[in-house]
Amino acid sequence: MGIIYGKNPVKEAIMSGKTINKIYTQGSTKELYDIIKLAKDKKIVVVESEKAKLDKMCDGKNSQGIVASVTDYEYFTIDDILQEAQKRGEPPFIMILDKIEDPHNLGAIIRTCECMGVHGIIIQKRNACQVTDTVEKVSVGACSFVKVARVTNITESIKYLKEKGLWIYGLDMEGSETVYNTKFDGAIGIVVGNEGSGISRLVKDNCDFMINIPMTGNINSLNASVSSAISIYEVVRQKNLSK
Amino acid sequence: MGIIYGKNPVKEAIMSGKTINKIYTQGSTKELYDIIKLAKDKKIVVVESEKAKLDKMCDGKNSQGIVASVTDYEYFTIDDILQEAQKRGEPPFIMILDKIEDPHNLGAIIRTCECMGVHGIIIQKRNACQVTDTVEKVSVGACSFVKVARVTNITESIKYLKEKGLWIYGLDMEGSETVYNTKFDGAIGIVVGNEGSGISRLVKDNCDFMINIPMTGNINSLNASVSSAISIYEVVRQKNLSK
Repeated sequence: MGIIYGKNPVKEAIMSGKTINKIYTQGSTKELYDIIKLAKDKKIVVVESEKAKLDKMCDGKNSQGIVASVTDYEYFTIDDILQEAQKRGEPPFIMILDKIEDPHNLGAIIRTCECMGVHGIIIQKRNACQVTDTVEKVSVGACSFVKVARVTNITESIKYLKEKGLWIYGLDMEGSETVYNTKFDGAIGIVVGNEGSGISRLVKDNCDFMINIPMTGNINSLNASVSSAISIYEVVRQKNLSK
Repeated sequence: MGIIYGKNPVKEAIMSGKTINKIYTQGSTKELYDIIKLAKDKKIVVVESEKAKLDKMCDGKNSQGIVASVTDYEYFTIDDILQEAQKRGEPPFIMILDKIEDPHNLGAIIRTCECMGVHGIIIQKRNACQVTDTVEKVSVGACSFVKVARVTNITESIKYLKEKGLWIYGLDMEGSETVYNTKFDGAIGIVVGNEGSGISRLVKDNCDFMINIPMTGNINSLNASVSSAISIYEVVRQKNLSK
């Protein structure tokens, strides 16, 4: 699911007993050979590959001839996400999940983010669904392409993002403006709350705007992955139309 | 999940061995008493209720003092859906599912339809997910409020809807126009295809327009319930803005 590259990081991963699916190598130096032997001793599959493949796997960075694909998701930092936006030459667009619990929702949100060009997702370390194997499966592989950062305190992260120039929008049934009457402009973070209790009080207080998706009917509550998708779509729609 | 009302229909349901959760009665005629006895013999819970409750359960129709809530979903017809639109004084807005297989997707779509005011959903009788208990659970009760019609032949249904004045839009990655550049006007049916294979050839040929949700990234495929939600939202957005 995640990847680790470079001689020392891969060696450390092997030694640490991390679950490694496969190791891809290119070249035949003594140092590389020693790591390959170490891996084979641990019954890890080692595959000789082309340099282009390795380069692609680690996003053009120097793999030093060795890349390991690992089961555990390797989380990113918020700065990684901001850099991703910069790399694409776009104002940052980040989804902030305030305690999403259901792996199907998290997986579906990651999938939508990947398809719609969101730069990254912030999740909470505690009381929230992490990027598990189920999430990976539901995301149909999108986990490998979307940067997920894991933080201890969502409120602090929001404050940090505001310092970095992002406008923070909280999605809530009682939001004062509809998504389609909201003008999404520049750097954006959208907060989606827990499936049952919504966005927590403190997080709400730190949002710049509270927005809603208008509903009719009796149920009056959209699934978290659906409301995420609708708000992401609305941002993308406005961006594409203003081009 | 569904309801059956009226002396004969309820009596027939009891006799047929249909799974009945509960029977609600009002009044004390001899005829009613006989049915209640029949139900109690079959260990079905019978509850005395107020007329107002029974009226509400069967949508103001004459319950004849007896309503049964049943487990099996009671499907509607396409005409029921068209009448629902007429009752609300709105041009029909129908989702047409061309072989959605995953109960989570069907449940999620039903939930979104209920929240966004879609008048009904058409599903196929074969090779498609039916309204099962899982679907009901995923829909968080929306199944009781949204009319689902089950048909043998989606293409024939589309032809019928076109005769009734609906414009049929097929949602497809290769659709020639984006959802947001499509002007949704008047009576609308949106076709969503199977999770793996999309909309089948024949159904596609019978759509008036093929439309797409623009995507970037590597996965390039949204979940069926997400793409349904986005297209429903876009129709609602345009309707609300034109008010």
